[in-house]
Amino acid sequence: MTSKQPTPRLRKSSEQVRTAVHQAVIELLSDPEGPDLTFPAIAQRAGVNHTSLYRRWGSREALLADVVVTRLERDWPLTDTGSLRGDLTAWAEGGVASIRTPEGRLLIRAVALSMPSGAAAQQERAGQLGRRMAAIESIRERAAARGETPPPLERILDQLVAPLYVRAIFGIDPPATGYPELLVRRLLDAEPEAPTS
Amino acid sequence: MTSKQPTPRLRKSSEQVRTAVHQAVIELLSDPEGPDLTFPAIAQRAGVNHTSLYRRWGSREALLADVVVTRLERDWPLTDTGSLRGDLTAWAEGGVASIRTPEGRLLIRAVALSMPSGAAAQQERAGQLGRRMAAIESIRERAAARGETPPPLERILDQLVAPLYVRAIFGIDPPATGYPELLVRRLLDAEPEAPTS
Repeated sequence: MTSKQPTPRLRKSSEQVRTAVHQAVIELLSDPEGPDLTFPAIAQRAGVNHTSLYRRWGSREALLADVVVTRLERDWPLTDTGSLRGDLTAWAEGGVASIRTPEGRLLIRAVALSMPSGAAAQQERAGQLGRRMAAIESIRERAAARGETPPPLERILDQLVAPLYVRAIFGIDPPATGYPELLVRRLLDAEPEAPTS
Repeated sequence: MTSKQPTPRLRKSSEQVRTAVHQAVIELLSDPEGPDLTFPAIAQRAGVNHTSLYRRWGSREALLADVVVTRLERDWPLTDTGSLRGDLTAWAEGGVASIRTPEGRLLIRAVALSMPSGAAAQQERAGQLGRRMAAIESIRERAAARGETPPPLERILDQLVAPLYVRAIFGIDPPATGYPELLVRRLLDAEPEAPTS
């Protein structure tokens, strides 16, 4: 007499799926032929069903944003140095360190790939930007709590965030020394600016 | 007696292929689902054979770069105003005008998509960057010929090019008025900087 044994189902846990999918995205981003970042390609590489990608992330941009933010937060941590200048310099040092690694450059480039396009995506884009600028916003809030006057967010975007992103995208190495300090000097030591509208 | 008439071949001229392919790329970039920029997809949309894309452009990045540079040069022309400040302001005004149109934003975002990735692509990337920075280089050369001292190229990249690109990529509108002048002021009116290495 044989009894049917239930075959153990090799079902990945939610966290295993996330890890496998993130890894698959990183690998596909590194493809020298150009990334094939369709859900079916990502699912195949990760060994998961592509419907679960749609269910969990909804869109390719949302998935890419999840990967990028998770990795950059891990590799580009936020330091509380006790001063606005110190915090901004530490943040820029993290950015420079990321740009100097191939994976870091890929991730920063992927931010551009992950920004939703189209007029309808305005709100989604704003949300993703908020996640990416969260580190800068905490630095500004800590400064304000200490009684310092941080520059407006958009000025930090223009003078600190933008040069790092564009260098990652274009593959232009930052100067070998002093670059984080240089960016922060441009931001904090210039004349105060009249607000624009 | 019938003589075989040669059937007129509906063969696109080289320029017609280029126009059709460029238009196809623009349309695919605008796809709200995210661009499918594979050669077969582009060829199908353009109504040309995809082998001719490989033959003519070699890689997707090279094709994208051709589209982006051609369009941006058309829509973002270079003005000779007679002064360094005037030329840089005019260039920034062109950038701001591009960012304010959906196609302009797409094109600037596509620059990021078109930068070849991978360590082996360093030289190709430098070449593409050269094409994109050609306008800035002419501004610097004209200034030097007039006896003005233009800022180093990398500083213009950091303070003028980067903010415009990153705003296009992130979909952050520039301030409604005075933004080109503000960027140029930050670049030209700050204290001279010690060279970094």
